[in-house]
Amino acid sequence: MSYVSHFQNLIEKELQLIIQEMDKKSLYAPISYVLSIGGKRIRPALCLSASALFDAASVDNCIAPALGIEIFHNFTLLHDDIMDNSLMRRNHPTVHVKWNKQAAILSGDAMMVKAYQYISKSPPSVLLPILNIFNRTSLEVCEGQQLDMEFEDRHDVSEKEYIEMIGLKTAVLLGASLHIGALIGGASDRELDLLYQFGLAIGISFQLQDDWLDTFGNSETFGKDIGGDIVSNKKTLLLIYALNSLSGSALRELKAWILKKEFDREEKISVVRNLYEEANVSEFAKNMMNKYYQRSLDLLNRVGGNTEIKNDLASFATELMKRSR
Amino acid sequence: MSYVSHFQNLIEKELQLIIQEMDKKSLYAPISYVLSIGGKRIRPALCLSASALFDAASVDNCIAPALGIEIFHNFTLLHDDIMDNSLMRRNHPTVHVKWNKQAAILSGDAMMVKAYQYISKSPPSVLLPILNIFNRTSLEVCEGQQLDMEFEDRHDVSEKEYIEMIGLKTAVLLGASLHIGALIGGASDRELDLLYQFGLAIGISFQLQDDWLDTFGNSETFGKDIGGDIVSNKKTLLLIYALNSLSGSALRELKAWILKKEFDREEKISVVRNLYEEANVSEFAKNMMNKYYQRSLDLLNRVGGNTEIKNDLASFATELMKRSR
Repeated sequence: MSYVSHFQNLIEKELQLIIQEMDKKSLYAPISYVLSIGGKRIRPALCLSASALFDAASVDNCIAPALGIEIFHNFTLLHDDIMDNSLMRRNHPTVHVKWNKQAAILSGDAMMVKAYQYISKSPPSVLLPILNIFNRTSLEVCEGQQLDMEFEDRHDVSEKEYIEMIGLKTAVLLGASLHIGALIGGASDRELDLLYQFGLAIGISFQLQDDWLDTFGNSETFGKDIGGDIVSNKKTLLLIYALNSLSGSALRELKAWILKKEFDREEKISVVRNLYEEANVSEFAKNMMNKYYQRSLDLLNRVGGNTEIKNDLASFATELMKRSR
Repeated sequence: MSYVSHFQNLIEKELQLIIQEMDKKSLYAPISYVLSIGGKRIRPALCLSASALFDAASVDNCIAPALGIEIFHNFTLLHDDIMDNSLMRRNHPTVHVKWNKQAAILSGDAMMVKAYQYISKSPPSVLLPILNIFNRTSLEVCEGQQLDMEFEDRHDVSEKEYIEMIGLKTAVLLGASLHIGALIGGASDRELDLLYQFGLAIGISFQLQDDWLDTFGNSETFGKDIGGDIVSNKKTLLLIYALNSLSGSALRELKAWILKKEFDREEKISVVRNLYEEANVSEFAKNMMNKYYQRSLDLLNRVGGNTEIKNDLASFATELMKRSR
């Protein structure tokens, strides 16, 4: 078993203990619900891997902040689901559906505090730098969600802005997870930065893959229905690129479908996907995805530390990107 | 000018700097709005006073965490206003009215992170104990809001449960403010505890006064319309006590008014207030309020430190309780 998988399991066990100990009533019930409905525990596993990369003995000191990161990540999903009015998450009803919006807001707030409780258990010698990067990253994640919501009402979002948005909303927390683990492992400033950038690149690549799968994947590998982004006119890189590269009647047709209020879901998906093919959208998106994937491997290559764990991190990145191959 | 007033002004100036520097766009606009519409800055002023009580030179080190506490307090108001569907706060439209619920949720989240950024600037030697009490208190404030919401649907709330709820929702943050200031000032464990208990007692007394004023005050001293709690059947100590002490036709009448869906607002206020008079509710509530007020002064008396500042804190507590005299 790879180090990363081992750490995913270790975190899952720790989370189960947290869930067991948590009050199953009122304020805490939605928190234990959200933590119990799954997730791949990627961020805390990256955090532990980064600490092990430099000092195997430091992993134990890293468990609490790694759990804090996972709890924070799940808190953002909980609140995002209210804001986006999402009804399902990981094949389960979302908290504001199962309880109500009030409970979802308040339990989310408590969940963020819980995250800080675990972050506060970081080794005292690195507590302050960990708080600083965690605070900065948490604000950036909020900024990313803000941009995502603002993009819904804009028609001039550029490719660069889109990459910036997913960088904030998704990738910075992967970067911070690695950075925090490496801090606890005693890495140099140069290596902290390389690992942060590695996390950023793999995060962007992963989100681009998610967007690609939503349009070009099949629902079995993707785990949810295909075409949701097309139906809701979500301004992903795919749509932005298509709008920029199509012209004439094809562009008019795409714009007409975006404006249509009533339509047959499958028809819209099929027509828009054909227009995307005309614009070579899939190829463009895959190239972009691969660019960030390659960049992530290059960055990881320049990091020192335990070679076996480094190889496991590279395999993990490759594994993450397999769904679109 | 008293120390406490001086510290209120000092915090107001620091907040104005924060507001000025803050991005006036998107995510941060609601944060600077909420911080700019006023408030007495009681919690940070208590925090600074507690540090000055033991070491005048420590006040500077206390400003950042005091600001963190004030930002956190305003964050809870922002999210509570969404949950309670309140339209106005301090004579201004609430954030979810001026913007929308999504913005109010997300900017609130960012505001909590901002609070933690300021808390993280505490002196490194006491950062960990400050984080611990701040984390614990923040969770308790959420628990208090949860109880407050649960009480809406319950008809068997006891006086004890009500005091517990306002203790969590309102008073613990006053206690924590004093505790954190005293920690930075270098107080002993005994004094930390006395000041925490002082804050708790004055907080409960203050909230009981607020409830009393909502029913028996006049709108000029109170600053908002009288009778709101009666109209909405809010389970304050007044209503709980009236339900417990009335009997026969008076009790039946009170219960009938609670159940009425359509009624004349002023008529309901007048009838219920008469029933309260029958049950001596005002006297009971004032006695309870005074019990906590006296307890707060007794606790403060047992604290050491600078006598002048201690006297100012006592005067401040007395001043806070003047609205019901």
